[in-house]
Amino acid sequence: MSAPDDAMSAEDRLIARYFRPLAKHPGAFGLADDAAALTPPEGCDLVLTTDGVISGVHFFADDPPDCIGRKALRMNLSDLAAKGARPLGFLLALALPGATDEAWLAAFAKGLGEDAERYGCPLLGGDTDRTPGPAAVSITAFGAVPHGKMVRRSTAKSGDCVLTTGTIGDAALGVLLRRDASRAAAWRLSDPMTAHLKRRYLLPQPRNALADAVLRDAAAAMDISDGLAGDLAKLCRASGVAAEIDVARVPLSDAARAALAADPAVIDTVLTGGDDYEIVLTLAREKLASFHAAAQAAGVAVTEIGHVTAGAGARFVHLGKTLKFARPSYSHF
Amino acid sequence: MSAPDDAMSAEDRLIARYFRPLAKHPGAFGLADDAAALTPPEGCDLVLTTDGVISGVHFFADDPPDCIGRKALRMNLSDLAAKGARPLGFLLALALPGATDEAWLAAFAKGLGEDAERYGCPLLGGDTDRTPGPAAVSITAFGAVPHGKMVRRSTAKSGDCVLTTGTIGDAALGVLLRRDASRAAAWRLSDPMTAHLKRRYLLPQPRNALADAVLRDAAAAMDISDGLAGDLAKLCRASGVAAEIDVARVPLSDAARAALAADPAVIDTVLTGGDDYEIVLTLAREKLASFHAAAQAAGVAVTEIGHVTAGAGARFVHLGKTLKFARPSYSHF
Repeated sequence: MSAPDDAMSAEDRLIARYFRPLAKHPGAFGLADDAAALTPPEGCDLVLTTDGVISGVHFFADDPPDCIGRKALRMNLSDLAAKGARPLGFLLALALPGATDEAWLAAFAKGLGEDAERYGCPLLGGDTDRTPGPAAVSITAFGAVPHGKMVRRSTAKSGDCVLTTGTIGDAALGVLLRRDASRAAAWRLSDPMTAHLKRRYLLPQPRNALADAVLRDAAAAMDISDGLAGDLAKLCRASGVAAEIDVARVPLSDAARAALAADPAVIDTVLTGGDDYEIVLTLAREKLASFHAAAQAAGVAVTEIGHVTAGAGARFVHLGKTLKFARPSYSHF
Repeated sequence: MSAPDDAMSAEDRLIARYFRPLAKHPGAFGLADDAAALTPPEGCDLVLTTDGVISGVHFFADDPPDCIGRKALRMNLSDLAAKGARPLGFLLALALPGATDEAWLAAFAKGLGEDAERYGCPLLGGDTDRTPGPAAVSITAFGAVPHGKMVRRSTAKSGDCVLTTGTIGDAALGVLLRRDASRAAAWRLSDPMTAHLKRRYLLPQPRNALADAVLRDAAAAMDISDGLAGDLAKLCRASGVAAEIDVARVPLSDAARAALAADPAVIDTVLTGGDDYEIVLTLAREKLASFHAAAQAAGVAVTEIGHVTAGAGARFVHLGKTLKFARPSYSHF
């Protein structure tokens, strides 16, 4: 790898300066080739996922740039975790508007690089373009599972327990608070509660520490990106089963609980708003104890929230009634 | 896989309608999971590449939508071909503006699907977003090479011949014609010549038929996306060598030759304009005959245009003089 020199284009210099330090994987070839090479672990399948963020859609233009890079990577890490896969690396496609803001780019790359280290998911390569539109970050991440063992959505069985990691609805409430600060008072939130919900939108906490346990124990799993209600409905549809969820058991943060106490209609946002990046999974009851033990060892909260039955659809039961949602799932169209 | 139903979001319906038919690979799970699974061919490395197109940057908003999908895929296929890799599949990240134009989407998906079949590169998964900006298509493609054998940029050796596939500069002239139709008269182009250059911009011809020969014979290779001059300079820099190119030997279409005869300054656009999606490669002289035979069998034109020497930089020699380029390589920044 030669040092940046005058014969390099401005694009190549940006890549060399901000992204080459992240490309520690030998198959990234220092970002100085057309493509990356990845030697799959023996006996493993590659798990492939792609997810991106667009300014004004998935993040606010004035969000801290280090969080934008982290969020884009974590959304993909969350998919890998839900599939029981260990991260191997990622590709970055970056579209940047107008004049290059090098301070923005430096902070973006720093956040991304720190998370790549933290989650053991190095940058393998990418593509950088100028766009007349808003900034957009698209990431493709690669993970490994033993051959044929990727945890699917379509393999839930009647009688399974339904569990979720973490707490549900925080990010969806956080984005409402970002759009209308007066909601904090309406929901009687303390400042730390408000900050918690906003932070949960800004920076998901993917549950990769739980991936091995998901791989071992889950019958079916997916990550919650479009809301628990809609995503669980997708899992049920793919599996040809129904699920019944006890809304009172859905794990909530203190902040979400406070908002819900002030305005019970908030339950709709909590269950359908999305951006949770938690894992919803089903497993056979006899695996419950071992899964709980593994989750405790991994430091990830998991909560049983319902069960799988024969039939179709995900029913959310609250005080004896089945909730009806205005829009069960986040949709871009 | 269940049929589209009322519980599906509009986004899921779009995916099911237009893209599920393209997802014929078993590891795509009918696009009904968070991720795809790919079993790597035994003894092979995965070759990973990502490249995208943005409306107003890489294509015109009124380009035929089937060509936009094809171009995005072919740009990535071209990278795989230059690395000696056989295609395995691709992921699609699509950002669409405003109201969904279903006729546009249907044509886009049809073109993409036809090329996926033609090149043996099935859709594995993807991500669909609404954007406030222009339409953007980002593709990540996967190929396979025998372990450790990906053809690199950094392995050219002094004494190697330099070759290129196809013809150079057509697409860069085609985009100038799209921007200013009066150039066709200034360059004294016939209508078929004008059409040829525009078509070369609209629809690259990736040289995947040559991938096995590149893998077997090339010392170093890359695909030409940012212009022959700049891309060959990158290859030289990565390899720590120089190259001397005889401009008179650079293969040109009849149309490019006519434009050059009318305006010799066009040579700059031909050699630095980019969007060629041809392969520039170096190989040891003793492999020249077998490579030419393989290229002929594959039906891909290849032309020897110069040689690798000690030193640094790619020199383009024309009528005894080394050309100086205003901007040797296409750069987004």
